[in-house]
Amino acid sequence: MKRYTVVGAGLVGSLLSLYLSKKGHQVDVYERRKDPRKNKKSEGRSINLALSERGWASLKEVGIEKEVLFDAIPMYRRVMHDIEGKLSYQDYGKNSQAIYSVSRGGLNRLLIEKAESKPNIKISFDHKCIAANLNDASVTFEHQRKTNEIKNDAVFGTDGAFSKIRLEFQKRSGFSYSQDYIEHGYKELNINPGPDGSFRLEKEALHIWPRGGYMLIALPNPDGSFTCTLFFPMKGELSFESLDSSNKAKEFMSQNFGDALELMEDFENQWNTNPTSSLVIIKCDPWNVKGKSILLGDASHAIVPFYGQGMNSGFEDCRVLYEIMEKSDNLESAFESFSTTRKPDADAISDLAMQNFVEMRDLTGQPDFLLRKKIENNFSNLYPDKWMPLYSQVTFSQIRYSKALAEGKKQDAIMQKVMKIQNIEKLWNSEEVNNFILNSLL
Amino acid sequence: MKRYTVVGAGLVGSLLSLYLSKKGHQVDVYERRKDPRKNKKSEGRSINLALSERGWASLKEVGIEKEVLFDAIPMYRRVMHDIEGKLSYQDYGKNSQAIYSVSRGGLNRLLIEKAESKPNIKISFDHKCIAANLNDASVTFEHQRKTNEIKNDAVFGTDGAFSKIRLEFQKRSGFSYSQDYIEHGYKELNINPGPDGSFRLEKEALHIWPRGGYMLIALPNPDGSFTCTLFFPMKGELSFESLDSSNKAKEFMSQNFGDALELMEDFENQWNTNPTSSLVIIKCDPWNVKGKSILLGDASHAIVPFYGQGMNSGFEDCRVLYEIMEKSDNLESAFESFSTTRKPDADAISDLAMQNFVEMRDLTGQPDFLLRKKIENNFSNLYPDKWMPLYSQVTFSQIRYSKALAEGKKQDAIMQKVMKIQNIEKLWNSEEVNNFILNSLL
Repeated sequence: MKRYTVVGAGLVGSLLSLYLSKKGHQVDVYERRKDPRKNKKSEGRSINLALSERGWASLKEVGIEKEVLFDAIPMYRRVMHDIEGKLSYQDYGKNSQAIYSVSRGGLNRLLIEKAESKPNIKISFDHKCIAANLNDASVTFEHQRKTNEIKNDAVFGTDGAFSKIRLEFQKRSGFSYSQDYIEHGYKELNINPGPDGSFRLEKEALHIWPRGGYMLIALPNPDGSFTCTLFFPMKGELSFESLDSSNKAKEFMSQNFGDALELMEDFENQWNTNPTSSLVIIKCDPWNVKGKSILLGDASHAIVPFYGQGMNSGFEDCRVLYEIMEKSDNLESAFESFSTTRKPDADAISDLAMQNFVEMRDLTGQPDFLLRKKIENNFSNLYPDKWMPLYSQVTFSQIRYSKALAEGKKQDAIMQKVMKIQNIEKLWNSEEVNNFILNSLL
Repeated sequence: MKRYTVVGAGLVGSLLSLYLSKKGHQVDVYERRKDPRKNKKSEGRSINLALSERGWASLKEVGIEKEVLFDAIPMYRRVMHDIEGKLSYQDYGKNSQAIYSVSRGGLNRLLIEKAESKPNIKISFDHKCIAANLNDASVTFEHQRKTNEIKNDAVFGTDGAFSKIRLEFQKRSGFSYSQDYIEHGYKELNINPGPDGSFRLEKEALHIWPRGGYMLIALPNPDGSFTCTLFFPMKGELSFESLDSSNKAKEFMSQNFGDALELMEDFENQWNTNPTSSLVIIKCDPWNVKGKSILLGDASHAIVPFYGQGMNSGFEDCRVLYEIMEKSDNLESAFESFSTTRKPDADAISDLAMQNFVEMRDLTGQPDFLLRKKIENNFSNLYPDKWMPLYSQVTFSQIRYSKALAEGKKQDAIMQKVMKIQNIEKLWNSEEVNNFILNSLL
């Protein structure tokens, strides 16, 4: 039996503790914040989460997928709102394939509840990590002004994008690291339920207002409300900085997102009160120090939210690491193997997430793009073993992200040629086009 | 009159203090190490330095170029040593154009000497920066166990690749940052002078032993010795890690660098004693906090040493910033302008330096590459206003690095086509080839 330290009881840390406890090991989890079950307001970052295949698969292995599903809302398609409020649609997958809107806070509380019910998991809240020795897996925590050093067999850093454990990695020679703030930040805005508790936009969908250089999205909540997020440049001519009064902001919103603005009560107050947050991409290498310390989730690979894969990839980290640890009792080779094999997948989903930002904010507003998706889906329905759309590979499969990225590039090259076929808008489901794709795949 | 704090009295910090003192401002320089004039051994990193046009131009403006030239050795060409010890040659530029081998320690002492001779520059050694407030330009130093806070009008972080001032930047939201350890590290090895003090390799040249995935180089010192540097993978099948005994190392050296090894006395001892160091690339953005704090040199853009531009670009930083500050009394707009306009140049030289590693360790050993250089030089001699080779733009001009990089890409595309011309090895200086290049430039 081993004894493990997990730093951070967020989504990834609390799920990881469940995995690590499976074989009877003792797991000590330390969380900087107070117990979130006692204070529902302090949920931290709250971009809506879209749970998909990788997330579900990871939750299943610890047996909590049904409870999660109970409060989740399936989103079967994208609904695009153009500048006049006209709608267009794009299914995410086939038949009943959907991504699921879930509440970060609710899911986190459920995972913590489940972890605490295990006799060999102990969660200590209000414990701030202030130092760590990565070589011998000892971590020092501060709690009520007292410090305490914990030394177990290994330490797992699941303390998020601004990880304190990773800061210790950063002091080591040979540790490559980058933090990259993208041009865009975000602000959340709320659409309340109708007077009768009804949804005021199509419920089981993800709404997008694509405007080229920026966009608004909305995800449904179980209470009938929608959480909207405006992704917008932080600085520059048209930016959060330039919209420096709620009047200017309202003017801008009414010009660009008129149908959404109409549904936002108390817009000015929301604009002034809700924080403007920045988005950071974090990459690093290696993720482990021998068999003693290892990083997972946002701590090792924080990505932008545009593919809905931040949580899903963090959950998959837990499953992948667990499977490697199952095969070997040697923590050093297990950690090395995880860091080496999982890193290309983390890099891939990071790049895919940035690509998907362009797709969402710009391409989804263009007829050509919707036609292209239609051709892909048509071909994929005819030849499901020959073509799985990139979005499906990422969202509805457990294919390695790095493989999906590579496949996606090949598909993109083919589709660029397809879109140049004369009269493609008429020929889109013709034998000619399908044969062209078939031949291109040879 | 303003009062400035400069953190770090290395090459860039001591030169910067001279620039900042020009208009009568008071400059307080703080250096972590002891006075290098009192302890010639503690010179820190000692990869040989190659001073070129940008460095000279920056030194001229503070009037110390003649003293520096006195101890510098011009290197007019690359001398390539193949695996059998056979030599080939490649001039760096035209006529008497050369890069100059200088001693890091000697140059640093000279700059410090010069700075201390100014009544308005005060250098405090043995002062370790332990904290800084970037918003109000206050810096706390530790000296003989006492701490002292200095608050001047602005603080200049010139404390190198592992800058303490930059660490404070790294804590700020919106600060993009990367540190990237490349696969290769390095180890210095020495070739002593001949018994009569003579140079045992061609004196006025930079020697390269290109071996594809790695290389050895040697630069001359005034005392007749050469400082060699082996650039070699840190880990892997053939690496510093795998050569884990001086016997294995000697075997490897004799197979790959036989003619150099013969000249190295006491090789085993050198191998065991001299440290193996890693190479890190650092990029960040922005470089300033309002008009209060700013980073220069390695602190903001540490690059790999393969273009000999680390010091030269740091010196050019000083000159470029000084020229901007000359034009405006407003520090905020000056710092913003420097950070915005200089950053693409720093990124460019960083990329160029990595490119040049491939060129040095691999391409210089290939006949095709030498032919290509010959064609370029020939054309450039005929049409000097139409073609300045990339190496010359970087090394013998003050053209912006970003412009040089862009020009270099265009030239590369043209030369790739030229090299595919049939019988190019015979036609290399023919009218046909020159016309082909002329047309490609249109």
